[in-house]
Amino acid sequence: MSPSILWPSVIRKGSLFLLPTGRLLGYEGSAMKHQDDMRFMREAIRLAALGSASGCGGPFGAVVVRKGRVVGRGCNRVTSSNDPTAHAEIVAIRDACRRLKSFQLDGCAIYASCEPCPMCLGAIYWARPARLVYACTRKDAASIGFDDAMLYREMLRPARKRKIAALQVLRHEALVVMRAWREQPGRKMY
Amino acid sequence: MSPSILWPSVIRKGSLFLLPTGRLLGYEGSAMKHQDDMRFMREAIRLAALGSASGCGGPFGAVVVRKGRVVGRGCNRVTSSNDPTAHAEIVAIRDACRRLKSFQLDGCAIYASCEPCPMCLGAIYWARPARLVYACTRKDAASIGFDDAMLYREMLRPARKRKIAALQVLRHEALVVMRAWREQPGRKMY
Repeated sequence: MSPSILWPSVIRKGSLFLLPTGRLLGYEGSAMKHQDDMRFMREAIRLAALGSASGCGGPFGAVVVRKGRVVGRGCNRVTSSNDPTAHAEIVAIRDACRRLKSFQLDGCAIYASCEPCPMCLGAIYWARPARLVYACTRKDAASIGFDDAMLYREMLRPARKRKIAALQVLRHEALVVMRAWREQPGRKMY
Repeated sequence: MSPSILWPSVIRKGSLFLLPTGRLLGYEGSAMKHQDDMRFMREAIRLAALGSASGCGGPFGAVVVRKGRVVGRGCNRVTSSNDPTAHAEIVAIRDACRRLKSFQLDGCAIYASCEPCPMCLGAIYWARPARLVYACTRKDAASIGFDDAMLYREMLRPARKRKIAALQVLRHEALVVMRAWREQPGRKMY
């Protein structure tokens, strides 16, 4: 779909799209990318609606896309599968990695119906996709009772001052195992 | 095991443990708790060693403990299971939740052989255990090639300025689903 169908006032000149004022709005590639972004986000939103209506869990959905195709899908499954880590993004990442037989999502994009919480943002960093697209914000999540914003604040606090108190013991014993791993010749980084 | 066996210079007076200077070191309960912490942390470290030696993944282990018993175990399985979310803490949390048939770890403690990365810390917050005990630090993790510290820094940056660029689209369409969920009578919070 070309942007001029969506916005009749947009003027097309070759591969460029201009406003009637002459201001450059974008080029054909970027407009197509935007259309793709909206299409895949609608799939994530559809999964969010489906999951929450069928009692899977919270109203969140996500898809992983590679070369224009959906390779992973997920909706929140926390309460139905007794798994606090089964957020939509994590479910979609695991689904995509299983399909792609890889622990890395190189060149992929992740579409999430809501801004990822710190757990999911962390998972996204470990999976290393090229892009992240989201719809609702952490404030929207807070407005329906999910305090992701609190989690982001807690991340910043020193371990001893967090709501879930953290204590450190036996560092030197654990360090021996970590250092032994570093010396292991066949170790696989991730 | 009493602290006086570990540290012969500690003096016991009733349920109190004192240093030769008379300074209070702790009471019997806290000393036992410390002994328990070390025992369970050693189990987490054992899993870390076992997992890394057998090629499961990185040198990290974790256990979940409830009422003095291990109810969940995990070692890192990222590379062997093609799952970037399979960090030791996540594996242990999922294991414990499956066993306890609950998506909440009320009254539990999590022992991790290394300070949790943001993904795992997020998972711990969602699982809501009472305590977290860890051994190595995020700096130790960085010293063997795992840049958890970078992840913590990225969490603080606004979405548009992160290494994995984030874009927002279709907020209002996703918000409809989130608001519909809020009105659902049988919804289950987590």
